[in-house]
Amino acid sequence: MARTIGSHGPTTLEAIRKAGVRLIFEHGYEAMSLRQLAAEVGIQAGSLYNHISTKQELLFDLVQEHINDLLRELDLALESKADPVEKLRAFVAFHVSYHMTRKREVFIANSELRSLEPKNYDAVVALRGAYEQRLAQILTDGVAEGVFEVVDIQVGTFAIIAMLTGLCTWYRPGGRLTRDAIIAAHEKLVLSGVAPQAAIGQLRAGGKSPRTAVAGS
Amino acid sequence: MARTIGSHGPTTLEAIRKAGVRLIFEHGYEAMSLRQLAAEVGIQAGSLYNHISTKQELLFDLVQEHINDLLRELDLALESKADPVEKLRAFVAFHVSYHMTRKREVFIANSELRSLEPKNYDAVVALRGAYEQRLAQILTDGVAEGVFEVVDIQVGTFAIIAMLTGLCTWYRPGGRLTRDAIIAAHEKLVLSGVAPQAAIGQLRAGGKSPRTAVAGS
Repeated sequence: MARTIGSHGPTTLEAIRKAGVRLIFEHGYEAMSLRQLAAEVGIQAGSLYNHISTKQELLFDLVQEHINDLLRELDLALESKADPVEKLRAFVAFHVSYHMTRKREVFIANSELRSLEPKNYDAVVALRGAYEQRLAQILTDGVAEGVFEVVDIQVGTFAIIAMLTGLCTWYRPGGRLTRDAIIAAHEKLVLSGVAPQAAIGQLRAGGKSPRTAVAGS
Repeated sequence: MARTIGSHGPTTLEAIRKAGVRLIFEHGYEAMSLRQLAAEVGIQAGSLYNHISTKQELLFDLVQEHINDLLRELDLALESKADPVEKLRAFVAFHVSYHMTRKREVFIANSELRSLEPKNYDAVVALRGAYEQRLAQILTDGVAEGVFEVVDIQVGTFAIIAMLTGLCTWYRPGGRLTRDAIIAAHEKLVLSGVAPQAAIGQLRAGGKSPRTAVAGS
């Protein structure tokens, strides 16, 4: 089968990326060989080099693209939101929805930071820092306006992101809960979690409050 | 150097386990060879088999021991606590403290579930389920008593555990915050996060509350 390099370039590169995500997710980056990757795509090992120069470059591209997508889509989700409460709600809905569809990329971005060369590691950590900064700013603004109370902005930022990302470990499409129900469950935890303690202090002192329906959340 | 198998048995096994944790953490289970493991411990590859029968057995032992430790220590932390609020506070403090000291074991238990054979995978998932069930029960009791409001107990359980475990990715001893400050920051997020919405509903409607100090949390 004759094949012209270039005409199928983007398609083959896309197939390499998809196979790379699958193999790294299942076996780990270090255990994956380029020979195995080529076999998975259905091309000769030597042909890989028409599309990627090294295994490291592939990993870096995959992780970098994942975080770039996250950042771009988050900014779209936040742009029409005016106040910290609405922004935080939008952050939760976006982060949860996105992570429902990109489980393997998320796993790789978290578990294979160890395999990035220093320069690439630094670039990825900087990108991830930009994403974290979006949430840190929402929390900071909310505290300044008196609508949030957060003991430590940095710990709060990391903790909320870890909580929302956690659904990658258990979420399966078609499960017991709808997408909206899963978002609502996380939204309650996060929005209440940053609420000022004055409002809930009495509960912690042992007072009881009437049970209420969770309508609308 | 003469060496009697048996007399150094436990010591060697402990060294093998420690080296195994380090190598799997750094390279991934599949990429780690038993030859590499033996070299790391400073014994002949053949001698490994006096202590472990397979690489799979080592991984299973490491993950299983980690979760057994978690369960045993959690039960100690909870046993003197009477009500759901105190139990949840104790759960947060325990889980955060434990994860500060076992970062590599936690990473392996989460990232290498993929590498467990089906029988071992099932055993680990059951153990993990028992740990999750402790938190689910605390949340269920708190909802029944009207002191917690949780949209979905299962999602809440997973989300809180993911949030608290997240500190493994950033915590370093000797950093900006003390252990107690880190616990307090998480405690605020979790305890407020499960508080009934009636108490904080007014904030979400746009009302402002006076800022308060976070004394005692």
